[in-house]
Amino acid sequence: MLIINGLFTDHYELTMAQGYFLSGRHSSNACFDYFFRKNPFNGGYVVFAGLADLLEIIRNYRFTREDLDYLKNIGFKDDFLKYLEDFAFKGDIYAPDEGEVIFPYEPFVRVEGNILETQVIETVLLNMINFQSLIATKASRVKQSAGNRLLLDFGLRRAQGFGGIHASRAAIIGGFDGTSNVFSAHQYQILSTGTMAHSWVQSYSTELEAFRDFAKYYPDKCILLVDTYDTLKTGIPNTIKVARELEDIGAKLEGIRLDSGDLGYLSKKARAMLDENGLDYVKIFVSNQLDEYIIKSLIEQDAPVDGFGVGTKLVTGGDDAALDGVYKLSEFNNAPQVKISDNLEKMTLPGKKNILRFYDDQNMYYGDAIVLEEERDIDIMHHPYQSGKSCNLKNYRNVRLLMKVMENGEIITPGKTIKEISQNVREKLSELPDEHKRFENPHIYKVGISEKLLNLRNKLVDEIKSVN
Amino acid sequence: MLIINGLFTDHYELTMAQGYFLSGRHSSNACFDYFFRKNPFNGGYVVFAGLADLLEIIRNYRFTREDLDYLKNIGFKDDFLKYLEDFAFKGDIYAPDEGEVIFPYEPFVRVEGNILETQVIETVLLNMINFQSLIATKASRVKQSAGNRLLLDFGLRRAQGFGGIHASRAAIIGGFDGTSNVFSAHQYQILSTGTMAHSWVQSYSTELEAFRDFAKYYPDKCILLVDTYDTLKTGIPNTIKVARELEDIGAKLEGIRLDSGDLGYLSKKARAMLDENGLDYVKIFVSNQLDEYIIKSLIEQDAPVDGFGVGTKLVTGGDDAALDGVYKLSEFNNAPQVKISDNLEKMTLPGKKNILRFYDDQNMYYGDAIVLEEERDIDIMHHPYQSGKSCNLKNYRNVRLLMKVMENGEIITPGKTIKEISQNVREKLSELPDEHKRFENPHIYKVGISEKLLNLRNKLVDEIKSVN
Repeated sequence: MLIINGLFTDHYELTMAQGYFLSGRHSSNACFDYFFRKNPFNGGYVVFAGLADLLEIIRNYRFTREDLDYLKNIGFKDDFLKYLEDFAFKGDIYAPDEGEVIFPYEPFVRVEGNILETQVIETVLLNMINFQSLIATKASRVKQSAGNRLLLDFGLRRAQGFGGIHASRAAIIGGFDGTSNVFSAHQYQILSTGTMAHSWVQSYSTELEAFRDFAKYYPDKCILLVDTYDTLKTGIPNTIKVARELEDIGAKLEGIRLDSGDLGYLSKKARAMLDENGLDYVKIFVSNQLDEYIIKSLIEQDAPVDGFGVGTKLVTGGDDAALDGVYKLSEFNNAPQVKISDNLEKMTLPGKKNILRFYDDQNMYYGDAIVLEEERDIDIMHHPYQSGKSCNLKNYRNVRLLMKVMENGEIITPGKTIKEISQNVREKLSELPDEHKRFENPHIYKVGISEKLLNLRNKLVDEIKSVN
Repeated sequence: MLIINGLFTDHYELTMAQGYFLSGRHSSNACFDYFFRKNPFNGGYVVFAGLADLLEIIRNYRFTREDLDYLKNIGFKDDFLKYLEDFAFKGDIYAPDEGEVIFPYEPFVRVEGNILETQVIETVLLNMINFQSLIATKASRVKQSAGNRLLLDFGLRRAQGFGGIHASRAAIIGGFDGTSNVFSAHQYQILSTGTMAHSWVQSYSTELEAFRDFAKYYPDKCILLVDTYDTLKTGIPNTIKVARELEDIGAKLEGIRLDSGDLGYLSKKARAMLDENGLDYVKIFVSNQLDEYIIKSLIEQDAPVDGFGVGTKLVTGGDDAALDGVYKLSEFNNAPQVKISDNLEKMTLPGKKNILRFYDDQNMYYGDAIVLEEERDIDIMHHPYQSGKSCNLKNYRNVRLLMKVMENGEIITPGKTIKEISQNVREKLSELPDEHKRFENPHIYKVGISEKLLNLRNKLVDEIKSVN
């Protein structure tokens, strides 16, 4: 795990931290919420990812001597830096299981502690959860298109620098089977996989020699890249020769990979040529600018594809390169807080909160209610911003989503494997009705707030307007 | 600097490396080109960035004992792993100065060495150059809109995980003045800056108290965030009070920041209110989902803005989250190589090459010619893919873009500061005619190939077609 030091933060977190310290208020307790306002990819949900990495980073978040010297250099004061010497996050964090399905405006990570420590970790929390949740969500969409076909992450070369490290992790969480990224495969115990590039083929005088040599060194794991010169005229005929030579020594060619041209057309032609030669066991893998839409289209065309290598659009999110998550103060010194803003929908929800998820009688998700932490059950929820709109919840069973995952700075959730988290995503998505999962204009999932929370917010807004 | 180990690569690089090793060809010399095919952001150019980090990573690229154990675990062979134990890149790299302006299809990073070492570094080269060049290009576009107004990178919280580290560096290269990202500011000697979030204001009973306390701790560097409750009704009036109180102690309020609402409208109203109170020296900074288009629009509306904080769309590239750079074999065992492919434009250019940049009589860029390394001057260049199209270059002076930057694995270019690289970008962009810099349908910059290169490619294509 790459450990990040205390400087991995926005400058203003430290400016404020010093201000809290100098004003003697740094031990005052505070509560912050993480939430986002808009589903990415014009989709209907987000897959929550990045929690394990975040907790690990926060647990180890320290300021080294070098960090402190630097901060002194840029103007921070000695007394404050002395305080930072012993800094460690000692607060509590509440969140759902990693892999939970979540929705806009839900405060699904709650951070409690003193104002200084809860403020300073804002940036790294946003950075880690925004990004991994974005990519896990994208991956889950690709998975939805690909069904049970093999999905491999090929994105490291187009990833946003070291962002590739966590992109590969999030891809697996969202439903991918393996990655080309050896660094992350090692770090997170992911299946690592890869065979050849065009350069391998070019390094031989003929494609046939290149294929033959590769088959010699990798007889049991041989996937040939067939488009270096001409897929149908040379790539597939040479594949057929090598496959037969492998049969002669009792081995079986695993597959071919198509990386250019029309993948629908070429996969069908290649399949037919292979089948005519008794090579129906040879699999066809494709890559090249794939995403959930292209994969869906290939499958609708009955393209005989056994697996997909997905790169750029998976590891960057493609058109939607960020989740717009924010981190807002909801309580200070035991008093609930609200931010009003000029945009109504940028108004925040005060107090320590939890989320109740309601199930319908088919055991599918019906809607979520944001409630005050002490509320155990509610009969009705209100629209968070449109007054007069409400929804009856009587007789629907519910579960509570936020649990304590860090206490006094220590991780208290049992570590889960990537496989377990990925399995959690699969189960949770199976409980989300299809209309929220479709790509085109998905049905908006109901998220409301409890009456107590609504009343608290209204009361605070009135109070603020009277004093400010 | 975060040093990345040998596992930061695609699995197939290692599969091929083992194949080169097992076939006894790993000492054969090879030459690879890096190039991209499409300008990002529908723009007319790319700013080359990431070179210094890349060279540093390559110089230190090693396989640790832990890496080798992992590779053994996933099936790599002992003999090959023994070889990797002593692996270090000992090849040569050619590139322009970091900050150069470059165009599609130009092979502007050239890697020479044995086939194994040149292959293994492919992924990290693509990762680093693709990403930093993308963000430096985006930043240069934002800079073009903002002119001499202050530009600050606020992106770390929305960056793609640890991608934020290099995004901030690239932002400065492209023309930004500073960053909120303290980690990168330290790493790369960048101006680090930041003041307060809404949470600071909320942690006080009233906005006025919050402003007052902040001014007390930061009298010389006080920028107040004015939109926590109501920008014009409370934020600006409270600002005016605090500015006067600062004047009383001989200090001057630096500015305000607007982070929501209509920034054009609010900045004008705020400016007028400040000016009416004799506070014309108080600057107005704005943030919230900015990019080159919104900033251009604000300036066209005469919004009185002194500086912009740009986040998400800067550090991720926004709609265009990746540069599509590739790395292709151009020579093996002293023989030039070409890859044909089913798409004509995916055909590669063979041999060791350089780029000649031609200037017109106004000392502005006229066009670039891709030439064989040994060519010193040419009179004509041809379109790389459309036959019969050519361009006369007689009487245009030219400069050679690629210089040796790494020799035998050692960096041989003098290290440049970020400021120097940024200055280089500014100078180079000033030599690029405006029609290539406009946002809407920029004029396509001429990039051709020399007659010798054209003939070499045609000859190789014929040869390949005859043997494969």
